[in-house]
Amino acid sequence: MTQQAAIALGVELRVLANTPDESAARVIGDVRLGDYRDLETLRGFAKGCDALTFDHEHVPTEHIRALAADGFAVHPGADALVHAQDKAVMRERLTAIGAPCPPWRRVATVADVEEFAGEHGLPVVLKAVRGGYDGRGVWVCRSVEEAAEVLATGTPLMAEAFVPFERELAVLVARSPHGQGVSYPVVETVQRDGICVEVLAPAPGLDTEQAASAQRIALKIAHELGVTGLLAVEMFATASGLMVNELAMRPHNSGHWTIDGARTSQFEQHLRSVLDLPLGSPVMSAPVAVMANVLGGDDPDVFSRYEHVMAHDPGIKIHFYGKEVRPGRKIGHVTALGDNLDEVRARARHAAAYLSEGVYV
Amino acid sequence: MTQQAAIALGVELRVLANTPDESAARVIGDVRLGDYRDLETLRGFAKGCDALTFDHEHVPTEHIRALAADGFAVHPGADALVHAQDKAVMRERLTAIGAPCPPWRRVATVADVEEFAGEHGLPVVLKAVRGGYDGRGVWVCRSVEEAAEVLATGTPLMAEAFVPFERELAVLVARSPHGQGVSYPVVETVQRDGICVEVLAPAPGLDTEQAASAQRIALKIAHELGVTGLLAVEMFATASGLMVNELAMRPHNSGHWTIDGARTSQFEQHLRSVLDLPLGSPVMSAPVAVMANVLGGDDPDVFSRYEHVMAHDPGIKIHFYGKEVRPGRKIGHVTALGDNLDEVRARARHAAAYLSEGVYV
Repeated sequence: MTQQAAIALGVELRVLANTPDESAARVIGDVRLGDYRDLETLRGFAKGCDALTFDHEHVPTEHIRALAADGFAVHPGADALVHAQDKAVMRERLTAIGAPCPPWRRVATVADVEEFAGEHGLPVVLKAVRGGYDGRGVWVCRSVEEAAEVLATGTPLMAEAFVPFERELAVLVARSPHGQGVSYPVVETVQRDGICVEVLAPAPGLDTEQAASAQRIALKIAHELGVTGLLAVEMFATASGLMVNELAMRPHNSGHWTIDGARTSQFEQHLRSVLDLPLGSPVMSAPVAVMANVLGGDDPDVFSRYEHVMAHDPGIKIHFYGKEVRPGRKIGHVTALGDNLDEVRARARHAAAYLSEGVYV
Repeated sequence: MTQQAAIALGVELRVLANTPDESAARVIGDVRLGDYRDLETLRGFAKGCDALTFDHEHVPTEHIRALAADGFAVHPGADALVHAQDKAVMRERLTAIGAPCPPWRRVATVADVEEFAGEHGLPVVLKAVRGGYDGRGVWVCRSVEEAAEVLATGTPLMAEAFVPFERELAVLVARSPHGQGVSYPVVETVQRDGICVEVLAPAPGLDTEQAASAQRIALKIAHELGVTGLLAVEMFATASGLMVNELAMRPHNSGHWTIDGARTSQFEQHLRSVLDLPLGSPVMSAPVAVMANVLGGDDPDVFSRYEHVMAHDPGIKIHFYGKEVRPGRKIGHVTALGDNLDEVRARARHAAAYLSEGVYV
C-alpha cells in the first residue's frame, strides 16, 4: 500500500523482502532478498537509498543505530523505535512523560506476579516484552498459577493490571523530522480474539473534548519520543478516562481506512514524514468510514468472491494483499464510506464476511 | 496509475515497455521490454496473462485481431479500438449510429478540400486519420493554400468543419464484456495549444438534462462500438448542442481527477471492466474536483518544488509520473477537492504552475 502512495509522489521504492512472494515484493520493481536481522544485508540494501523505513518493528535496534551511524537517514530512528519494540521501555518512558498507562511492572518470578496481583488484583495481564503481535505474546492470567506457566517459558515478561475498558480507541499521528505533527481523527477499533476486525472512523459518540485529549496524548508521545514517521497509539477508553495500550511506529491497521476515507492516506503521510516533506491533510473524505479486515477462510480463491461483493455494493473499496490465504490471517480489508454509521458498518461487514468465507451477514 | 488500482485489487500486472525508464516500467515488477508493433513480441508477452489491455491506442489493429484469434482476452477488442485509432472510421460509425458530429469527409486532394470548404466554410480542420495526439496531427487551415501544404506531406487526412464551440466537455464511461455500463459525471476540459491543461468536475453550470444527454451519447457509443474498458468521449458544447470531437479507449487525462475525486478511480474502473468484474461507483467524493496538468518546465527538479506546494496546501493531491522532464510535456498532475469551484480551481492552478515552473499564480 506504500507503493500506491509512492507511485503518486514519484518516489521510487526499494524493498528488502525475505522471499519474492511477500506482498511488497510482488508490486515493487526493485526487490532485494535478504534477512533484516543481518546488518551487512541491511547496509548493502541501504546503499543508494535517500531514506530508510520499516513496515514492521522487528529490525534489531542496534542495526538501526549502526545504519544511522553510517550516515543513512533512518525513520523512525532507533531511540524512538525501541518504544514500539520493547513494551517495558515503552511503559517506563510513557510513565515518565505522564501519559496515562495501566499499572505495570517487569516480572521475572512468581513472587513478582503475586506481589503485583496483591496490589492490583486478578486477572493479571502478562506481556512478552518483545515480539508480540495481534494478541500473540499477551496472556490474561486469572490466577497466579496460570501466570507461573507463562513465566516457566522463560520469555522476558511484564505484568499489567487488567483494564476493564469500555472500548478501544486508536489515534494515528505523523511527525516529520522538522517537527511538524498531524493527527487523524480518533477511531474506535473492534477486536476479536486479539485481532482487529473493524475500525470505525471517527469513533462514534466521542465528544470533541475527549477526542482532542486523545489526540493531544498521541502527539505528545510522538514529540517526546522523537518519532519520525507514523505513530499509532492504541488506547483503552475506561470509566475513569483514557489509557495507552500499545504503540506502533509504521502504517497501522487502525489507519487503513485513510486510503479511501481521508484526504491523505496513512501511507502517503508516512512517506511524506520520512522524506521530511510537509504533512498532508488528515481530513475525512466522508462523514463516516468503516474498515473491516478480511481474514483468510477455508477457500483460498478470494478473487472468485469479488463478483458478488462488487455487484452488491459498487461503492465498497476492496484491498487484497496478495498474501497466501491461511485461516484467520489478515489477507485484505474493505472500506465503506457514507453518512450513516449503521448502514456503512453493515456494508463493510457484509463485504468482509463474504470475501473471507463466502457467507452473507 | 493502473498499478495503484491493481495493488488494491490484488491484480498482478505485467507491462510491455519500450525501455525500462517508462513510467509503468518503473513501478511494476514484471516488466518485459519489446516493441508493441511486433506481433511475436506481443504473443510472447501475452502468454500467461488473463487479460490484455492498453494505455495507448497505437498497437496495430491487425495484431490485436491476431491475439484475439489466438484466444487471448483483449479489451478493448480490435473492432472497438479501431474507432480510437482511425478518425475516419470513427466518424463513419458515429454518423451511422446518429451520434452528433461536425460535418466531415475524407480528403485526398486540394479539390476535395476546396469542395468541403465551399460547403462548410473556412477554416477547415484537417486531421491525420491515424496517430494524432495532444494537438499533433490536427491543422486548422484558414485557407485552401494552407490545406494544400498539409496535403503535400502525404499523410492520410480527413477534413472537419471548424466548430465554433463554447467550451469542451468530456464524458468518461466504462463498459464491461457482460455489457454493464457506467458513466462518470460530465467534466469541462480546458485546452491550451491543443493540450488539456485543466479539468473541472462536474462541468460548471451544465444543467441536468444536458449532462444526462452527454452521458447518454457516450454510453450509446460504448454500446454500439462494443467497447470493453474505458471510453472517453470528448465533446464540443456549441450554441446548437453537443458534438463529438474525439474518442479514447483507455484511462484518459480527462479522468485523472477520479483518482482522488471519485469513489472508483478510472484506473480501477478500467481494470474492473477488462476483467469483467462489476463496475464501481462513479460518484464524486467531494462536490468539486479540479485537475490541473503539470507540464515540464526548464528546471527538471520537480521534487524540490514539492515542499512549497505541500506546505501551502496540505489538501492538494500530487501525481508525478516519473517521466523525464521536457518543456511542455505532461509530467504529472494535481487534483484539488472542495466545495467552491473558484477556490478549488485556484488551488489546482497554483500547485500545477509552481510544480511546473516554480512560479506563483
